[in-house]
Order: sequence, then C-alpha cells, then structure tokens
Amino acid sequence: MGLFSKDIKTLDDLFVHTLRDIYYAENQIVKALPNMIDKATNPALKQGFEKHLRETEGHIKRVEQVFELHGVEAKGVDCPAIDGIIEETEEISGEIDDKQVMDAALIAATQAVEHYEITRYGTLIAWADQLGRSDCATILKQNLAEEKATDKKLTEMAESRVNMQAAE
Amino acid sequence: MGLFSKDIKTLDDLFVHTLRDIYYAENQIVKALPNMIDKATNPALKQGFEKHLRETEGHIKRVEQVFELHGVEAKGVDCPAIDGIIEETEEISGEIDDKQVMDAALIAATQAVEHYEITRYGTLIAWADQLGRSDCATILKQNLAEEKATDKKLTEMAESRVNMQAAE
Repeated sequence: MGLFSKDIKTLDDLFVHTLRDIYYAENQIVKALPNMIDKATNPALKQGFEKHLRETEGHIKRVEQVFELHGVEAKGVDCPAIDGIIEETEEISGEIDDKQVMDAALIAATQAVEHYEITRYGTLIAWADQLGRSDCATILKQNLAEEKATDKKLTEMAESRVNMQAAE
Repeated sequence: MGLFSKDIKTLDDLFVHTLRDIYYAENQIVKALPNMIDKATNPALKQGFEKHLRETEGHIKRVEQVFELHGVEAKGVDCPAIDGIIEETEEISGEIDDKQVMDAALIAATQAVEHYEITRYGTLIAWADQLGRSDCATILKQNLAEEKATDKKLTEMAESRVNMQAAE
C-alpha cells in the first residue's frame, strides 16, 4: 500500500488496493532474488531460491488473472513494507563475510518476505470470499499454498545443517 | 536490522543483531498501537488491540531478559521492515472514512505486524538452540506463542463479522 492509495470507500476498494500491494511486492521479490541466489553458498539453499524465483514469476501471473477476473487494471502501488524487508536483507548481507553466517541470514530474510506474503494472501482470500469472489479466492489460495511450502522448507533449513555449520 | 549493523562475523553476532532488531520493532509497535486503538470501532477489535498493547509491553521485558541472560547490552537497531509495515498502516488508514472498512484494514495491518514478529521469533529460537542457549529460546518461545495467538484471533475476526459488515 502507499502514497497512491486514495478513495478507499468499500471493502472492494480495499481488496483491489491490497491486490495492487501484493502485485508490487511480488515484482520487487523477482528483482531481489537473483542477488540472493548469488550470495547463497549452500547448494540446497541456492537451488531453493532458484525454484522460488520461478514460482514467484508464476505468482505474478496468477495475480494478473485475479485482476482480470475482477475487472480492474493490473498495476502495483507502493508498498513500504516489502521495500523495508528487502532493504533490511541488503543491509545485513552487506555486513557479513562468513559464507555460513550469510546463508543463515539469507534464510531469515527470505522467511520475513514469505511471512509478509502469507499474511497478505490470507487477508485477500478472506476478503474475496466475503465479496462473493470465490473464483479469485481459489487462485490466490494457490499462491498462499506455495508461499507456505517455501516457508516450511526454509524453517527446516534454519533448524538443521545450514545454521549448525554457522554455529560451529 | 539496519544501518548500524556491522561486524557480523558469527551466528552469535547475527543472533544479537536480530534480537536488537525485534527489540526495536516491539518498541515501535508499542508506539503505534494507541493510534490503532483510537481508530478501531468494533468493540472486540478495540479490546483486542488494548490487550495486545499490554502483551507487547511484556514482550519488551522478556527480550530484555534475553539480553541480560546472553550478557549483551539491551538496545535496538534500525529496522526498516517494521518501519515500512507501520508506515503502510498509517498511510492506508488515512485514506479510509468508513468505520467497518477501517476495521478490516486495521486487522490486515496488525496481521502483517504479527507475521513479522512470528518470523523473527522463529528465527531467533532456532539460532538460540543452535548456540546452546535453550534458556534464551524458552523465553523467546513465550513471545512467539502470544504473537501466534493474536494472529489467530485476528484471522477469526477477519473471516467473520467485522469484515462481513464492511462487505454489506
């Protein structure tokens, strides 16, 4: 959401605005992921980021489908939240040399991104249902499921080998 | 995390830095909640925010206990992520007049805050365990449990009456 948000009078307006927020966010994530792929050392983490980049490109297409179904223009609005999360990732990774500590930091940063998306998709699905747009909800649920699966995989990595090496 | 992050050489450094990140975030949330309490209309939502303000004050004290146990100074570091999430909340709520749409937006905004905290506490607990600081992990788990409970209550509100009224 952001500086361009105006005239939010109904839940439908809020739904469209938040859809534009996540559309902007997904596009920023596509731009940020290649840098994270470069910085990751652990092969499983690197491959996970590469897979998530392809998934994120698919999420953008699904959000575009929702815009079309709902009959509104597909465009983004500024989203200071995702900008802040990505800014933090870039700042922290600039302060780390050790490869294993970097991997631990990258996992944590990506989980912050995933949780932002999980909360936004959860909200959008609840609102779509209330607005009688179960068709939109169905598509958004596919993105939510993939974000949750990515977060789960990252948790497993955070709790296992990648960080254990960093703690040695 | 932020501009003051430097010299992160070990997982322990990263743990302390992220503890300072959540300490800053919790303090910003305490400052932001009174404004959200003022804007909320639904009595259950207003009461929920009031309860969460008191809980958040308790979270700050628990994080201070963790600093003390770990033998490091209790201080915050800039956290562009929480700043961005709170900025979004303030911007969007400035664009809404309808009370029920405002409540729906406030629920969504608070869930974004909760999810940020959930991901950070999850990360901190995993790292505390790997660093052999199960004492710190135990305290952090109490904060995580309360954040998850708050998020669950907000989801129930988002899926039920508050938003149904806004959709009418």
